[in-house]
Amino acid sequence: MTNTSKKIRAAILGASGYTGAELIRLLVRHPNVDIVLMTADRKAGQPIDTVYPHLTGLGLPDLIAIKDVEWPGLELDVVFCALPHATSQEIIKGILHATGHDFIDEMIIERPSDYANAIQGSVKVIDLSADFRLRDTDVYTKWYLEYHQAPELQKEAVYGLTEHYREEIKAARLVACPGCYPTAALLALIPPLTGKIIKKDGIIIDAKSGASGAGRSLKEPNLFAEVSEGMHPYGIAGHRHSPEIEQELSRAAGQDLMVTFTPHLVPMNRGELETIYVTLQDGQTAADLRENLMTAYQDEAFVNVVAEDVVPATRHVRGSNQCLIGVFEDRVPGRAIIVVVIDNLIKGSSGQAIQNMNIMFGLTENLALEQAPLFP
Amino acid sequence: MTNTSKKIRAAILGASGYTGAELIRLLVRHPNVDIVLMTADRKAGQPIDTVYPHLTGLGLPDLIAIKDVEWPGLELDVVFCALPHATSQEIIKGILHATGHDFIDEMIIERPSDYANAIQGSVKVIDLSADFRLRDTDVYTKWYLEYHQAPELQKEAVYGLTEHYREEIKAARLVACPGCYPTAALLALIPPLTGKIIKKDGIIIDAKSGASGAGRSLKEPNLFAEVSEGMHPYGIAGHRHSPEIEQELSRAAGQDLMVTFTPHLVPMNRGELETIYVTLQDGQTAADLRENLMTAYQDEAFVNVVAEDVVPATRHVRGSNQCLIGVFEDRVPGRAIIVVVIDNLIKGSSGQAIQNMNIMFGLTENLALEQAPLFP
Amino acid sequence: MTNTSKKIRAAILGASGYTGAELIRLLVRHPNVDIVLMTADRKAGQPIDTVYPHLTGLGLPDLIAIKDVEWPGLELDVVFCALPHATSQEIIKGILHATGHDFIDEMIIERPSDYANAIQGSVKVIDLSADFRLRDTDVYTKWYLEYHQAPELQKEAVYGLTEHYREEIKAARLVACPGCYPTAALLALIPPLTGKIIKKDGIIIDAKSGASGAGRSLKEPNLFAEVSEGMHPYGIAGHRHSPEIEQELSRAAGQDLMVTFTPHLVPMNRGELETIYVTLQDGQTAADLRENLMTAYQDEAFVNVVAEDVVPATRHVRGSNQCLIGVFEDRVPGRAIIVVVIDNLIKGSSGQAIQNMNIMFGLTENLALEQAPLFP
Amino acid sequence: MTNTSKKIRAAILGASGYTGAELIRLLVRHPNVDIVLMTADRKAGQPIDTVYPHLTGLGLPDLIAIKDVEWPGLELDVVFCALPHATSQEIIKGILHATGHDFIDEMIIERPSDYANAIQGSVKVIDLSADFRLRDTDVYTKWYLEYHQAPELQKEAVYGLTEHYREEIKAARLVACPGCYPTAALLALIPPLTGKIIKKDGIIIDAKSGASGAGRSLKEPNLFAEVSEGMHPYGIAGHRHSPEIEQELSRAAGQDLMVTFTPHLVPMNRGELETIYVTLQDGQTAADLRENLMTAYQDEAFVNVVAEDVVPATRHVRGSNQCLIGVFEDRVPGRAIIVVVIDNLIKGSSGQAIQNMNIMFGLTENLALEQAPLFP
Repeated sequence: MTNTSKKIRAAILGASGYTGAELIRLLVRHPNVDIVLMTADRKAGQPIDTVYPHLTGLGLPDLIAIKDVEWPGLELDVVFCALPHATSQEIIKGILHATGHDFIDEMIIERPSDYANAIQGSVKVIDLSADFRLRDTDVYTKWYLEYHQAPELQKEAVYGLTEHYREEIKAARLVACPGCYPTAALLALIPPLTGKIIKKDGIIIDAKSGASGAGRSLKEPNLFAEVSEGMHPYGIAGHRHSPEIEQELSRAAGQDLMVTFTPHLVPMNRGELETIYVTLQDGQTAADLRENLMTAYQDEAFVNVVAEDVVPATRHVRGSNQCLIGVFEDRVPGRAIIVVVIDNLIKGSSGQAIQNMNIMFGLTENLALEQAPLFP
Repeated sequence: MTNTSKKIRAAILGASGYTGAELIRLLVRHPNVDIVLMTADRKAGQPIDTVYPHLTGLGLPDLIAIKDVEWPGLELDVVFCALPHATSQEIIKGILHATGHDFIDEMIIERPSDYANAIQGSVKVIDLSADFRLRDTDVYTKWYLEYHQAPELQKEAVYGLTEHYREEIKAARLVACPGCYPTAALLALIPPLTGKIIKKDGIIIDAKSGASGAGRSLKEPNLFAEVSEGMHPYGIAGHRHSPEIEQELSRAAGQDLMVTFTPHLVPMNRGELETIYVTLQDGQTAADLRENLMTAYQDEAFVNVVAEDVVPATRHVRGSNQCLIGVFEDRVPGRAIIVVVIDNLIKGSSGQAIQNMNIMFGLTENLALEQAPLFP
Repeated sequence: MTNTSKKIRAAILGASGYTGAELIRLLVRHPNVDIVLMTADRKAGQPIDTVYPHLTGLGLPDLIAIKDVEWPGLELDVVFCALPHATSQEIIKGILHATGHDFIDEMIIERPSDYANAIQGSVKVIDLSADFRLRDTDVYTKWYLEYHQAPELQKEAVYGLTEHYREEIKAARLVACPGCYPTAALLALIPPLTGKIIKKDGIIIDAKSGASGAGRSLKEPNLFAEVSEGMHPYGIAGHRHSPEIEQELSRAAGQDLMVTFTPHLVPMNRGELETIYVTLQDGQTAADLRENLMTAYQDEAFVNVVAEDVVPATRHVRGSNQCLIGVFEDRVPGRAIIVVVIDNLIKGSSGQAIQNMNIMFGLTENLALEQAPLFP
Repeated sequence: MTNTSKKIRAAILGASGYTGAELIRLLVRHPNVDIVLMTADRKAGQPIDTVYPHLTGLGLPDLIAIKDVEWPGLELDVVFCALPHATSQEIIKGILHATGHDFIDEMIIERPSDYANAIQGSVKVIDLSADFRLRDTDVYTKWYLEYHQAPELQKEAVYGLTEHYREEIKAARLVACPGCYPTAALLALIPPLTGKIIKKDGIIIDAKSGASGAGRSLKEPNLFAEVSEGMHPYGIAGHRHSPEIEQELSRAAGQDLMVTFTPHLVPMNRGELETIYVTLQDGQTAADLRENLMTAYQDEAFVNVVAEDVVPATRHVRGSNQCLIGVFEDRVPGRAIIVVVIDNLIKGSSGQAIQNMNIMFGLTENLALEQAPLFP
């Protein structure tokens, strides 16, 4: 496909969450994409602008319940799946078990696995849930307390950390986009672990996120009056992004490791900052660590190591697909501190998903993602 | 000029304020513009990314003091002037008094009026300060407590309220962009005053703005701890946007009028909301008012009257050039309420300036302004 | 009762809402009050510190469902009713229909009206809901879309706007505390209407409130990501506080009047600001208006007219029972602007309720309410 | 002095900062204190309510420049010094070098050291600056880049971490109140280091603070638009609270140690949260650590170890003198996480200062500090 050929026909499953809304916001500016389907079970039947008034006048289809989708005729090229974890598995299984047979017009889709008969064989799926991130189904079961419904696809899925899986993503049919916290942590830690700059033990990731990371679900702790003018950690020593981080860091280190990971909720909408404490390998310095990261990302448009006198702040990346990394020598000998920031809804979620789509379809990688950050 | 010809060479005077930063953020995405000069006296010598880290990696020139600009050779097509009021007058006077003579290389510019000899005769100026908004220099002197330094240009200047001065802007050499509060108020009130839907007397504009409207100046009331978790009015019955609003509304009404205008500071970065209380002319209804506004803006990309059951919120336009207008019938007979929202830094300032530039250069009006609002 | 006698035994019905929590926070510092009962149906069985960790270590009873309360033996002196509107009526009816008979021990309370037999005859009720504010039951039905269940008590109830109903409150058995918006509006407008300083027509109340005013209920518009970094009006020309304001202002003016009232949601926790636009009677000035208000409140501890050069801000009263009023002359002849601020949870709700309790029990009026505002 | 004797005559030097304002707010509620002097050089001559409108109507003296104070006749019992670091030394030196001689009326104080002759010999000084916290003047010079002007007093000064220096504070003439970050860190770490529960090496303190911690100084990074909707670390591996933390922890551990300490700025007014990562001594568990802290603070009113299922949040202590500590077992064997929260302006500054004053004057320790936290 070239930029001038017919547009990519995209579906967004779970369009009423913040992640879905962000996919829409970015994709409507993509020169090669048409959004032809948006599902949202609880908001089915509504136009998107009643659910998200900021998405008005964009010529988008109304929201529809997944069970009511008439898949034949949609001729989807790509499906973004922004559903809650556990719900994605069956649906994606159905979508990808395509037979390649002709579409059966007017067929009534009753079960997810019937999607297979209705969708063209070449559809690609980009999943933003946690369902296909963990390669080991036992680990999945342990952390998500459910058996995986599509273990064969979990094997096939490519982990969508763009800068480190670009080649695999190119060829993938199913990409599992990383969680927001893992995205930041892995971008900062994979190169120095691979390069033996830092020790695999004793890594501490102190993470801070804005409230949009909790989604649009109605829970007391998400109310304005509960979040504003205060902060607190949550999921201490038990957050589900831990095994995901460890899976990828162990792979980078070449041996199993565990990390200490503590997320915090901060009274801001967007933005994620991780302060990462690492121990340097003997003979290595913070300067070596910086050099290692600069080399790793020297050709990357969206990952940048900042100058020595700059401290990354979430507002430097708000509204953009940028990831900024700062490296600092600690006063304690042999230790260094890495500070990494992303916009959790963009590089940490929808933006990275679109970056992956661009790769999967042979497009320029930054299409729809060129916007400079919004400040103030 | 067509989209494929050589790019518009733009200067931003006063690039270190929030308005300047927003001009940069938007213009770097403009396909027809090259930013070739950015001035900032207090930050002279610095690259823009030390002043605004979110504007990193954009290939922009370093900041320079106005007095150090070597105008010859810049071959400017357009100058955006985002300087504090009163400072713009002399500078713009200098820029526009171009002789059309050849540039004198290596000339040393010592006084603003010397700009004239160094800048090509066809340069256009888009001023974002208050200096050229008021046509009556006595009114200017009364409200700004200074004599105007370029009264002849004040006469020439076109008021840059795009939707209502489009034809004049097309031909203008100097456009004076409206203040943020007037932009919202005038978009809501000019059509019904012109159309005799509402009475000219008793108009009350209760305005609310985010803190970025106060700029980046170091004043105690702008500190985070002073603004957050609270709100208050300011400039009650004395804000300098009052005469600007009255100038344009009087013109629309065909006779002099006064408005009650009260701005408030709200603990948010961006966004401006005006709740406007009006008295309907005898026989007119809120439905007529809505109809009047819908008709006025039916062909406009950036001004939209929302559906009857929608209440405009600043977050519906954050980060975009949109203006949303809602019309509501009051319980008190004969009265109506208009709610209008804009992003003060975009439609209220830099975005409208770029919209005007697009018009002045014969470009598609929404270039660099197509981005959907950012939410959450 | 004197300050040295036995303590007032207080119950808080609906202790799990923000209003209930604020009653607790303030009452635990009251030297004459013991909280002996706290109900919360959805949180029944929990200690208050799991619902509100900031209320830890205060020696309070666990939350209990209303239906499980064993009224005999509680020997309540006062009941604060912080329940949602409509639910208060039956309960308060039951409480107040006390027979004066001895308590029937071990009696099982099955219906609200049975409370009567279990509570001592002298119990006083301070209702913070809207149920007893409107004297006209038809008006209640029109605005709340329900028939009133205790119309005879609605007649008896005293409107708890302390500074204007102090004498009636002293003798009252049932006090209906005003809504937060009416509290601010009425304190500003009753004196000048009574004193014929301002005209009864054309009063416009543009109100702004923090998010705690919406309570702790789980609604999408109350989420942090929906509220922060934005603002909007709501309930335009239809908010239920309108008839309450009009009831009391009509009484002050001596004839029926209507007001234009528009509340807005502002991204802060606490605080309420009303910008009120009024027309002066012929011959009256803004200075007269100021004088009128200063005279009206000269002996009041909690209502203060600020100096001419001070602009009231919500942060000047945050965390306190204070109400500040500023008076400003408009540029438009014959018009004035009143700015009034309160903490919606204190003077606008729980604080005023306690102020009323102090009056009802012959205590010093500022007990538990002396705390200076919290800033920053 | 007993509670019924004449009141303590207090001075607040540096009353126009946030710390000074908070001292005032709390002390006006103190039954045994009269504020008889408040200085503020830049705001000299103003009443406090023009500087802090929330402190209106409290019957306080006007602000005065230090050089204009007429010390004789003030008969001060205690001086709270809330001046910037380095400025306190000379002034406190002057105040404490009292001769005990009679006051010389009408004496003109020209140099700080003259205070000595004017102030009664028994005055006590409570310093809230950093000037007397570090016992080693070389360390002071290294971190503050200045020579200490009162090294003999630095030796005398008692470190005002109330719960750990109570006996010394009782007898002290000069108390150096800890910084806000050290207060939280030391309360969490002194007991387990003293008790050999945790290792002295590898302690990581990831701290987060609200913007009031930066004071009321006019710096660009403190502006609302710079702070809101974002966060970032600062002073990485170089914050001046590091040597203070290390001084006290080394003392607790019985040998020198270094900590990794990273503060972050969070978009909230008040509140400080530290997430502290520690390594357990062999054989010790997180349960032992919790037990150790519970035992250490079992009799303390203001330091509380929360229940195992509670996560401390800054909003649990906002507006109060409380410190909450939570202990969590890490997934990584041998490691634990301590979460500690305080209100930086109260327990982290002015509240702890008043707590110390209460001790120094033999008063009940919680006078003026009993207020429950303010939420929401």
